[in-house]
Amino acid sequence: MAYWEENVRKVEPYVPGEQPKVKNIIKLNTNENPYGPSPKVSKAVFDFDSLRKYPDPAVTLLVEKLAEYHNTTKDRVFVGVGSDDVIAMAFMTFFNSDKPVLFPDITYSFYPVWANMLGIKYETIPVDKDFNIIKEDYYRENGGIIFPNPNAPTSKLVSRDFIIDILKANKDSVVIIDEAYIDFAKEGSSIIDLTEEYENLLCVRTFSKSRSLAGMRIGYAVGNAKLIKYMNDVKYSYNSYTMNTPSILYGVASVEDDAYFKETVKKIVDTREKFVKEIESMGFIVLPSAANFVFAKYPGRDAVDIFDEAKKNGIYFRYFDQDRIRDYLRITIGTDEEMDKVIDFFKSYL
Amino acid sequence: MAYWEENVRKVEPYVPGEQPKVKNIIKLNTNENPYGPSPKVSKAVFDFDSLRKYPDPAVTLLVEKLAEYHNTTKDRVFVGVGSDDVIAMAFMTFFNSDKPVLFPDITYSFYPVWANMLGIKYETIPVDKDFNIIKEDYYRENGGIIFPNPNAPTSKLVSRDFIIDILKANKDSVVIIDEAYIDFAKEGSSIIDLTEEYENLLCVRTFSKSRSLAGMRIGYAVGNAKLIKYMNDVKYSYNSYTMNTPSILYGVASVEDDAYFKETVKKIVDTREKFVKEIESMGFIVLPSAANFVFAKYPGRDAVDIFDEAKKNGIYFRYFDQDRIRDYLRITIGTDEEMDKVIDFFKSYL
Repeated sequence: MAYWEENVRKVEPYVPGEQPKVKNIIKLNTNENPYGPSPKVSKAVFDFDSLRKYPDPAVTLLVEKLAEYHNTTKDRVFVGVGSDDVIAMAFMTFFNSDKPVLFPDITYSFYPVWANMLGIKYETIPVDKDFNIIKEDYYRENGGIIFPNPNAPTSKLVSRDFIIDILKANKDSVVIIDEAYIDFAKEGSSIIDLTEEYENLLCVRTFSKSRSLAGMRIGYAVGNAKLIKYMNDVKYSYNSYTMNTPSILYGVASVEDDAYFKETVKKIVDTREKFVKEIESMGFIVLPSAANFVFAKYPGRDAVDIFDEAKKNGIYFRYFDQDRIRDYLRITIGTDEEMDKVIDFFKSYL
Repeated sequence: MAYWEENVRKVEPYVPGEQPKVKNIIKLNTNENPYGPSPKVSKAVFDFDSLRKYPDPAVTLLVEKLAEYHNTTKDRVFVGVGSDDVIAMAFMTFFNSDKPVLFPDITYSFYPVWANMLGIKYETIPVDKDFNIIKEDYYRENGGIIFPNPNAPTSKLVSRDFIIDILKANKDSVVIIDEAYIDFAKEGSSIIDLTEEYENLLCVRTFSKSRSLAGMRIGYAVGNAKLIKYMNDVKYSYNSYTMNTPSILYGVASVEDDAYFKETVKKIVDTREKFVKEIESMGFIVLPSAANFVFAKYPGRDAVDIFDEAKKNGIYFRYFDQDRIRDYLRITIGTDEEMDKVIDFFKSYL
């Protein structure tokens, strides 16, 4: 090995869900929205000549629009290239203690990847046998706390009171609640407003799920102005212009069409409820879902076999070859028609 | 200060050139291209509905197009959100030695910012009194080397042989040549082909200058397949999907229109030569430029005064309040008409 190679940061990268190049498949493996973005997005034209110029480094238009949407001020909003970029920046900015960062053992699998990449100490806290996060486990010294609510890939939601208890026990470290899927939970589940009261709380959101804009890479965080300022300092030390011109304008157009947003979210929730009822009646065990996906197992059948067979039939689920969840499939909620085909497949296969 | 605040990564962020919101100014402060992107870019339409899906994490279409353009293979190309993202990833990936990374004292001011942010040891090596990089200064133990060629903000070019000598003396660390402005240098100046011979050489490029796409945030690196693999591992540990769908498609369309690219680059070089001649005849001292900007001083006048007065007249230059270059202005080359107005301003003001 050449000497230069010894100083390379060697990492075990995150493996994203497959993006198959085959057409005409039912793609339920990466929690994308089955509906396209708001038609208003396609009308957000811009002058092509203006692309010769750098975008606004402060992403002002989108930051202001999100501040308005959340009834807050623009110094409390941070925008990044998808929530992955936002969370990576938050790890870099806030998780620099000698004490371990805490997150559940069953959760978004990118958390340990970021920690390893950045040399951040962490400890995973086992969820219980029903995949519940136990709040008391987080009442201890730590260098930060992060979990998604609803959790991924379990789809399980914790209550606002649950998070308030964690916040009360953790004034000394930054607590990040990753609300990637919160729009699919019942109203009033979000803790985004608590960022007014708890200066160490950061709430992260994405446009990739409920806003149908995964292809644009837009995520954001809301928190105390001090938190946001620290994150922006790190962002400006990394890449001054992360958001390109179309992402800013399409993001704004998406937030402006609240009716479309609510309508598509409701459709997905309705489809989810119907789908869950159907597959439960077939014998599936389904965790209570507050997300745009369900986490389900079929007793007596290996999940990997169902996964493989579905794929052969042009239906893509997500399977995690990982302790404790090896029996489960994560199934994104598509359109009614797509879920009917999934049910047909289950009926003929199982 | 709350305890959580003690563990925040505190940084002195990079300050990008001003993006004034005033209209009708002559904006020569951030080295943007005065011409719009290729008209083919505006024809690179995509299905808006497809934005609901994640973009291709491997950015295959653009990586393949760039590989073809540079007559190389796709495993030797890395694409990121502007060359800033590419260089930040390269710092994270390659500069992890205990020895200091070396770069010139007068250079792209983001290098020390990245090093500070990432806790990387570095040493700046003074350029000589004529702003030349002295290659022998880099014949010593180090944890990596980086400089732009042509250098910024001096606009001065070093030869291929100069870089070959540095490479021969530095087999043990990664050498990064930042070719953001190389398309404005005389043909045959690039060392991109040397990445075939030197496995520790990384050549970085951007779409923000010669390709008129600053607003899209596209940069890339070419290097040995091993280097690129290491960078991709870090990228996938940071954010799997950095490039959004429009940036991939617009990038491809831009590379496909080589005639337009060559034509606009030539126009800028012609304008530069004319402009330099004119202002030299007025008494300016101008460093020999191989970029789309010039670095110039006017003996007997404070650069900051010219800078301020120009701004009042709607003409934006870049001024660095920094030792050794406080006498200079960095002036981006705009259209002939814009540069004529600059000359008129100089004539009336000086």
